[in-house]
Amino acid sequence: MKIAIYGYGNIGRGVESAALQNEDVEIVGVFSRRNPSTVSTRTGIKVFPASDIEKYKDEIDVLIICGGSATDLPVMTPALAANFNVVDSFDTHARIPEHFAKVDAASKKAGTTALISCGWDPGMFSLNRLLAKTFLREGADYTFWGRGVSQGHSDAVRRIEGVVDARQYTVPVEQALEDVRAGKMPELTTRQKHTREVFVVAAEGADHAAIENAIKTMPNYFDEYDTTVTFITAEEMKRDHSELPHGGMVIRTGRTGLDKEHVNTIEYKLTLDSNPEFTACVLVAFARAVYKMNKRGDCGCKTVFDVAPADLSPLSGEELRKTML
Amino acid sequence: MKIAIYGYGNIGRGVESAALQNEDVEIVGVFSRRNPSTVSTRTGIKVFPASDIEKYKDEIDVLIICGGSATDLPVMTPALAANFNVVDSFDTHARIPEHFAKVDAASKKAGTTALISCGWDPGMFSLNRLLAKTFLREGADYTFWGRGVSQGHSDAVRRIEGVVDARQYTVPVEQALEDVRAGKMPELTTRQKHTREVFVVAAEGADHAAIENAIKTMPNYFDEYDTTVTFITAEEMKRDHSELPHGGMVIRTGRTGLDKEHVNTIEYKLTLDSNPEFTACVLVAFARAVYKMNKRGDCGCKTVFDVAPADLSPLSGEELRKTML
Repeated sequence: MKIAIYGYGNIGRGVESAALQNEDVEIVGVFSRRNPSTVSTRTGIKVFPASDIEKYKDEIDVLIICGGSATDLPVMTPALAANFNVVDSFDTHARIPEHFAKVDAASKKAGTTALISCGWDPGMFSLNRLLAKTFLREGADYTFWGRGVSQGHSDAVRRIEGVVDARQYTVPVEQALEDVRAGKMPELTTRQKHTREVFVVAAEGADHAAIENAIKTMPNYFDEYDTTVTFITAEEMKRDHSELPHGGMVIRTGRTGLDKEHVNTIEYKLTLDSNPEFTACVLVAFARAVYKMNKRGDCGCKTVFDVAPADLSPLSGEELRKTML
Repeated sequence: MKIAIYGYGNIGRGVESAALQNEDVEIVGVFSRRNPSTVSTRTGIKVFPASDIEKYKDEIDVLIICGGSATDLPVMTPALAANFNVVDSFDTHARIPEHFAKVDAASKKAGTTALISCGWDPGMFSLNRLLAKTFLREGADYTFWGRGVSQGHSDAVRRIEGVVDARQYTVPVEQALEDVRAGKMPELTTRQKHTREVFVVAAEGADHAAIENAIKTMPNYFDEYDTTVTFITAEEMKRDHSELPHGGMVIRTGRTGLDKEHVNTIEYKLTLDSNPEFTACVLVAFARAVYKMNKRGDCGCKTVFDVAPADLSPLSGEELRKTML
């Protein structure tokens, strides 16, 4: 399978290294909106201008689009699906139906196969929400994130005056997790589920108290959470906070039995040293499924809900049944 | 969707109560090899002789076969697939390819859809092994079972002379679990992964030491494990051990990154008050998928690897994308 990477940020680099771990995957190249001469890939794969992508139509089986959800993907994915099988990681949950409709129209018209909102949330977490809710019909479910770096929250802090650099960790509240795992089915507020830890490098002479206040009262991002702010040096930031770990859990507890006398709990948990690299591993597996589905004539827009698991694997159905069932 | 239950043991009863929690599912009846007048169902659904099943061919959308894997299912599933869409929970891992081939031939010939080896292991655990191994290409994976009742091991102890009743719990070793979750990727022997706890009601005057020795040295079942044996009264057995809890975890740890510098862990964990009721919930969801697949003309033998998750749910693709993605 020949793939190409459209956009060379953290996820694009993750796809580059994930491809090396998948023998059936070959990378045709990276397509970038930056000047290709300024982009050097980590394994020496070629970089082409994004504007030239259509010239490579016949050389690419699946294009993995590694753009941002805010402004890039809503435009990129429908446009590229007109010529390529594509996978994206569009993660603005509320706008998924709208994004789906646009990509579906483009891919059905072109006879391509497109898979949107792939990764772990949306993605594997969504899949586990669906499965758990389908099996345990009466119950409660919970998604916890972390401990991990939220790029969106880190960026929001960086925009505050006097902040040179920032890193925000989302942390699940232990007590809440314990209650959920114990099958107590608690009702939890936003504040009861997660805390936020912020590490800030401030400019020389900046007002630390003002920065801390600006963070803690920031609407949507921090005001509904208990937040701790710690000021550190640029050296400490580089030494202790240059990785992008993340993870979380999807937990559903549901009652079964004629008298609802039994409590059953399903938990799916990710603990990731590298959020973008794991996301990329998922994208590559789904790219394989997209490729197989398109070869079978199964066109249009898909999500993780529409993919038979066997299509993700390089192994045959026979091998899978023999070794993993 | 109209289903029927073939065999009315623990799982059959689980399907009966699971159907009540699924509004789109109606039970046509229970088919039993026993004399129907001796079988009374918990919710009053009708009982028919198993030998009459073919008469109900046009009334049943999917037949859930709740027989044993040792001798029932290898014969029942291929035979019934010649007339019905079927789901079974065949769990003799080593014989799955053979079972698949027979059921596939029968169902393809008849234009029916059959799903074998469904439940949680094989079933959801298999699905998670496939997903985790496909995403994290280089790593190690582990399946732990318990704490829960193993019916096979309980039965084996009951066959020992002087044993009136027995219950066997499979228990994961905490230290092993901790090391696996910490990403240490240990190599573990059978003994290092699980211990076995046996509760025995002995006949009056029976030789306890001989029973204990017979258990601990029993080949395949106990000899490779650290086993504890506790003698209890019939009253204690009834009071403390009449439920069928189970569960376990599928954990995979894998390295990513150009220098394999990042460790990522995926864990899927089940904690079940009722093993047969949860298994039944899974069977009912997959029966729904079988029904949809057959209506689309997708015939032959399937496993959990072949089913697109959306087919398990009563919700439409649109609703799923809106609420769970």
